[in-house]
Amino acid sequence: MSSTAGQVIRCKAAVAWESGKPLSIEQVEVAPPQKNEVRIKILFTSLCHTDVYFWDAKGQNPLFPRILGHEAGGIVESVGEGVTDIKPDDHVLPIFTGECKECVHCLSEESNMCDLLRINTDRGAMLHDGKSRFSINGKPIYHFLGTSTFSEYTVVHVGQVAKINPNAPLDKVCVLSCGMSTGFGATVNVAKPKKGQSVAIFGLGAVGLAAAEGARVSGASRIIGVDLNPSRFELAKKFGVTEFVNPKDHKKPVQEVIAEMTGGGVDRSVECTGSVQAMISAFECVHDGWGVAVLVGVPNKNDAFKTHPVNLLNERTLKGTFFGNYKPRTDIPAVVERYMNKELELDKFITHSVPFSEINKAFDLMLAGEGLRCVIRMGA
Amino acid sequence: MSSTAGQVIRCKAAVAWESGKPLSIEQVEVAPPQKNEVRIKILFTSLCHTDVYFWDAKGQNPLFPRILGHEAGGIVESVGEGVTDIKPDDHVLPIFTGECKECVHCLSEESNMCDLLRINTDRGAMLHDGKSRFSINGKPIYHFLGTSTFSEYTVVHVGQVAKINPNAPLDKVCVLSCGMSTGFGATVNVAKPKKGQSVAIFGLGAVGLAAAEGARVSGASRIIGVDLNPSRFELAKKFGVTEFVNPKDHKKPVQEVIAEMTGGGVDRSVECTGSVQAMISAFECVHDGWGVAVLVGVPNKNDAFKTHPVNLLNERTLKGTFFGNYKPRTDIPAVVERYMNKELELDKFITHSVPFSEINKAFDLMLAGEGLRCVIRMGA
Ligand SMILES: NC(=O)c1ccc[n+]([C@@H]2O[C@H](COP(=O)([O-])OP(=O)(O)OC[C@H]3O[C@@H](n4cnc5c(N)ncnc54)[C@H](O)[C@@H]3O)[C@@H](O)[C@H]2O)c1
Ligand SMILES: NC(=O)c1ccc[n+]([C@@H]2O[C@H](COP(=O)([O-])OP(=O)(O)OC[C@H]3O[C@@H](n4cnc5c(N)ncnc54)[C@H](O)[C@@H]3O)[C@@H](O)[C@H]2O)c1
Ligand SMILES: [Zn+2]
Ligand SMILES: [Zn+2]
Ligand SMILES: [Zn+2]
Ligand SMILES: [Zn+2]
Repeated sequence: MSSTAGQVIRCKAAVAWESGKPLSIEQVEVAPPQKNEVRIKILFTSLCHTDVYFWDAKGQNPLFPRILGHEAGGIVESVGEGVTDIKPDDHVLPIFTGECKECVHCLSEESNMCDLLRINTDRGAMLHDGKSRFSINGKPIYHFLGTSTFSEYTVVHVGQVAKINPNAPLDKVCVLSCGMSTGFGATVNVAKPKKGQSVAIFGLGAVGLAAAEGARVSGASRIIGVDLNPSRFELAKKFGVTEFVNPKDHKKPVQEVIAEMTGGGVDRSVECTGSVQAMISAFECVHDGWGVAVLVGVPNKNDAFKTHPVNLLNERTLKGTFFGNYKPRTDIPAVVERYMNKELELDKFITHSVPFSEINKAFDLMLAGEGLRCVIRMGA
Repeated sequence: MSSTAGQVIRCKAAVAWESGKPLSIEQVEVAPPQKNEVRIKILFTSLCHTDVYFWDAKGQNPLFPRILGHEAGGIVESVGEGVTDIKPDDHVLPIFTGECKECVHCLSEESNMCDLLRINTDRGAMLHDGKSRFSINGKPIYHFLGTSTFSEYTVVHVGQVAKINPNAPLDKVCVLSCGMSTGFGATVNVAKPKKGQSVAIFGLGAVGLAAAEGARVSGASRIIGVDLNPSRFELAKKFGVTEFVNPKDHKKPVQEVIAEMTGGGVDRSVECTGSVQAMISAFECVHDGWGVAVLVGVPNKNDAFKTHPVNLLNERTLKGTFFGNYKPRTDIPAVVERYMNKELELDKFITHSVPFSEINKAFDLMLAGEGLRCVIRMGA
């Protein structure tokens, strides 16, 4: 039992006070974990685009002050009542979508959309008592995705905690707690390209390139990368992407460009942009008769996916996925093992690293479209 | 070789001269079949809603004068050059979507959307020479779907001709050339409910009830029928439909009503209405995590399928199908055998029968929403 168990911990956290303003590192109080909760010392966290959406809050409900962050690795400090399968000193990844292991989804082989713990971007408090575990001078600070990893310590529901191999380097596998698993799983678990098929990836950020990594591992013959930002293309070459299309370079819609390149459309597409326009293009660019399109990007709250029903009747399939259809507690430890066994590469996704004090640089890099993942070192 | 082979045949056909006006039975000239064509003596034809859409032409491109009709059974009168696997006296079903056996779709196991012969509602002539085989006093009459079965004789591309067991009663199996195969296949080949799952069927016309028949054969535990026309419900009881929902009886959207009835949504849905509103409801009423919705209805040309992308990200699957994903020449003879073996019931779908001279009654019945299939007896 750690000496801090049962006590409030004072530590540093990066607080988003209002939309679009730089985070400020504050001294916060982190309450002890309650029933079915785990308090984690975060060692490394990385920035995912979803954090940025809820920080600038343009297409999302604003909820401030809030501690963002959901891609991270850490070590358990203490656990609350009822937590039996996680103990202090376990190495864990907090995950934005949970697994209660009891609901219809957790009992279904197909779904990872746990009724109790699925992603809820509007919730800013813990399920147990509807309260926040974070405060500054008694004023509560909202949680984000149940993870809030931009803090030296955070409290997470046990259903959102994946216990992993303690030998796995947390500064690398932290990226598996969202982006890499999401993209990789979207391809291998959902789009499921057959060997020799063509795959289009929309959005060559970290999630999209993880999807490309899934296409490479699946033996895709052509991997067509689509992005509006040409600087992504150089980077993407390391990820097995074989061709590039920038929609800005063409007068006709990108789905038509891809259809022409491929004799009618790609066999599979995976959308990793969050742009509803890209979602529609990703759907319409798959081959009729058998094409499958998978949506991954997080849309704005007023977006509408719109297509002519004939595009569906022509035997295309449209699906979406959260977290690459992985069940966080059941499946993620094995994905970490794939990294340990060198089947899956992660290091190439981590293009930047900053100390916690410079967390805003990670935001600047993402806004500038530079690099893929920036790992934030909490200890430093 | 029949005595009429190679000659123009004069016979009766029901011509649609303009949109929405009763068909008129005319003496037409039917030219001999050209390369890769088959001339068929139609014995029985039935009316499908798709005929009605292109007859009233409200949401579709008008093309008149035209000979409609695409659900039928007949006997081959003569064949054109290059036709080797069909010969005079074969019993056949002409089918609105073809199979060339050579294109990427025909070679793919998954698709029945033949590049050469897939449904084309705007084409009014034969592929070989872009001309019609029908004329009245030298003035051409347009074909419909390459089948135009509202004629005592018609000319069809060999790729649109399924050769069936000559013992099969053509007055029954004619309905397999479109509606019944479409609905049944949409469930068993595309939605694929597992034993014990719940299935919602939107639209309880013949196609929808054939989809319900597919759900029954698959061992569905609940089959929820949705229709705006309450008179459909009585009829549907014979088809294994266990519950009924009329969207008009509810203030809230029908997808919400179904979600409440089923603890979050049905496992599978099959839309057989042609209404884009029903398509959206059919999609949104499937359970998140694993639900699959299949669209079958033919939409209007300016319709848009519209949904919030989160409905997809929540791990729903949306697909469409033509002709229940059956390959017409390869698969339909075996579906006829399922009827011959009494696995599949067809007789209950045929609620009316009229002589050719009263073909407009079949239109009246469909417009009034009465009955399912009305078989038109060409000989009578
Ligand atoms: N479904 C999930 O479980 C899940 C999990 C993690 C992330 N996401 C989402 O996945 C998306 C990608 O995340 P990321 O971290 O890789 O973001 P990122 O910003 O690093 O990458 C997104 C890329 O998409 C490109 N892009 C934007 N609009 C485009 C368009 N219309 N056409 C082509 N390219 C376009 C951008 O230039 C950028 O390179 C985000 O929407 C994120 O919120 C979803
Ligand atoms: N995809 C294909 O290959 C294919 C093949 C054949 C038929 N179709 C289409 O399938 C559909 C059904 O054909 P059918 O012959 O059974 O037609 P039908 O007219 O006999 O049945 C349609 C039923 O849908 C109901 N309906 C209409 N709008 C509705 C709504 N918003 N909500 C609930 N119910 C509604 C009607 O009341 C009717 O009972 C048509 O659109 C037809 O064009 C498609
Ligand atoms: Zn993320
Ligand atoms: Zn659960
Ligand atoms: Zn039809
Ligand atoms: Zn073909």
